[in-house]
Amino acid sequence: MKLALDGMGGDNAPKSVVEGALLALEQIPNLEIQLYGQQEKLDPYLKMHDRLTVIHCEEVVEGTDDPARAVRRKKDSSMARMMDAVEEGKADACLSAGNTGALMAGGLFKVGRIEGIARPALATTLPTLDGKGFLMLDLGANADARPEHLLQYAIMGDIYAKKVGGLQKPRIGLLNIGTEDKKGNDLTKAAFALLKEADLNFIGNVEARDLLDGVADVVVTDGFTGNMVLKSIEGTAGALFTMLKEAFMSSTKTKISAMLMKNNLRDLKNKMDYTEYGGAGLFGLQAPVIKAHGSSNAKAIFSAIRQANTMVEHTVISTITDTVRHLEID
Amino acid sequence: MKLALDGMGGDNAPKSVVEGALLALEQIPNLEIQLYGQQEKLDPYLKMHDRLTVIHCEEVVEGTDDPARAVRRKKDSSMARMMDAVEEGKADACLSAGNTGALMAGGLFKVGRIEGIARPALATTLPTLDGKGFLMLDLGANADARPEHLLQYAIMGDIYAKKVGGLQKPRIGLLNIGTEDKKGNDLTKAAFALLKEADLNFIGNVEARDLLDGVADVVVTDGFTGNMVLKSIEGTAGALFTMLKEAFMSSTKTKISAMLMKNNLRDLKNKMDYTEYGGAGLFGLQAPVIKAHGSSNAKAIFSAIRQANTMVEHTVISTITDTVRHLEID
Repeated sequence: MKLALDGMGGDNAPKSVVEGALLALEQIPNLEIQLYGQQEKLDPYLKMHDRLTVIHCEEVVEGTDDPARAVRRKKDSSMARMMDAVEEGKADACLSAGNTGALMAGGLFKVGRIEGIARPALATTLPTLDGKGFLMLDLGANADARPEHLLQYAIMGDIYAKKVGGLQKPRIGLLNIGTEDKKGNDLTKAAFALLKEADLNFIGNVEARDLLDGVADVVVTDGFTGNMVLKSIEGTAGALFTMLKEAFMSSTKTKISAMLMKNNLRDLKNKMDYTEYGGAGLFGLQAPVIKAHGSSNAKAIFSAIRQANTMVEHTVISTITDTVRHLEID
Repeated sequence: MKLALDGMGGDNAPKSVVEGALLALEQIPNLEIQLYGQQEKLDPYLKMHDRLTVIHCEEVVEGTDDPARAVRRKKDSSMARMMDAVEEGKADACLSAGNTGALMAGGLFKVGRIEGIARPALATTLPTLDGKGFLMLDLGANADARPEHLLQYAIMGDIYAKKVGGLQKPRIGLLNIGTEDKKGNDLTKAAFALLKEADLNFIGNVEARDLLDGVADVVVTDGFTGNMVLKSIEGTAGALFTMLKEAFMSSTKTKISAMLMKNNLRDLKNKMDYTEYGGAGLFGLQAPVIKAHGSSNAKAIFSAIRQANTMVEHTVISTITDTVRHLEID
């Protein structure tokens, strides 16, 4: 599989991107990487590899660039060029840890929607207590959604969970404010009816408070709510870790306690770190467009590359395309 | 101030309700409590007090009762009777730790909306790292909301934060998926415009991930989103405490660590416990209708009673009524 990689995206680019790429080339036999970026910035971290090609680009899409315009205006940026490679059929998938909005806008514009998919959705795997994780979408690609969009999110999530997660019958849950069938707002009530009729293992409404317990394998929601819930989980975990750190540093006694717990606390933090599960995918495009977390280290980049690779190897996109086409005929 | 109290509501009723009531009578000089419930169940915990009246009721609204019907059908329930007392002017406020939906439905039906308030909202104070907390509404009284409802929530929250929280210029934030002015879904974009024009200290959009840092004093959102965020915070905190407990119990070394941290961990858990800040209020009704957390202990009931008392003493309801009337004339 051929991956186009944005060498300049993310807080730790290009170092962690290059290191992650080299790690992936070592671990994944059939992977070929086209690395886009400013040659002089990439050089210090590069090692020769027969499945690695470096393509120099002059420009870089910054985190502060206007998402809607960045990729169109910065034609010779690493992000634009990696998407050109997909558009021109030179790469099977692309990946960036840079500006999320620019990647989404560029993905729509250059890679393009699958015919029949009304709205692409941003999807990621979030951690659960049992370490298996669950896929949630949409996380904010579209702030507003209609019931039929949520159905399409569910279909795409189902295929991903089967093909990439290896699940036979992924449990599809609708994120809602109560587990009872009749609960919700106008959107979720209508989406519930559609999901119930669909050829999916729909387990009904799931509540935000049960997500980390692994109540479903795929959780479907509109982008506004998904983004809210994602950031609430992040914010709460962050605040608790801050409070915990303060508590551990508050006296000699607690500092000894911290020393004794050091490894366990690191494990706990890793368990909540969803970058371990790979990046976020913009589902519904004609090729995998993967967004690695902005703060990705080499390992997180590697996870995201592996995820892109699995999506290509397991024909996620063509399965979505066929499924949606089939639905239209019916 | 005269409080009508549901003696039978909540997981620890009637014990913790009676104990909380007795504690409140001790601490709040002008408080009179009318305690509604099954006399024989209340008796074991009761002590004589000259400002406490006990009114026997035959029925109890259960947590499993249909919210819309419970109060209408169970006419002689402690919850229905305490709201009758408010409706008939015998009490200034009412409080229950029982069925939230039934309390909301009954509140609308018996206590009634303030004229000009389109939708009452469920509001509660959530914890922040600095211990000050912030008020969030709506937490789920209405799953769907229009922009003008969000404006009314902001006005009510502002008055509450001034009168009860003692703030001069409460910072009003709109919960959104980004801090930039143009961010959001159709609802928040329209609400932003209304809030900007209003006579409020509107600080703009706030993100879910910054809530526990105390980014605003009053956070306004639709009931669906508010409920989601509330439950995400609860669920994440719960999952992390579970993981932390497991980590502390995993070996002899970590058990020693846990012993050394015991008091600090309890403090941390208390800090995240929003029942310490009082109950949830159904704002927009003609009298304070307070919902204490279902798992309330005596201290949480006491906090909620103190909150109801402050709302009455500081004329929150009449200020909301006057403010809304004034807006209608403009």
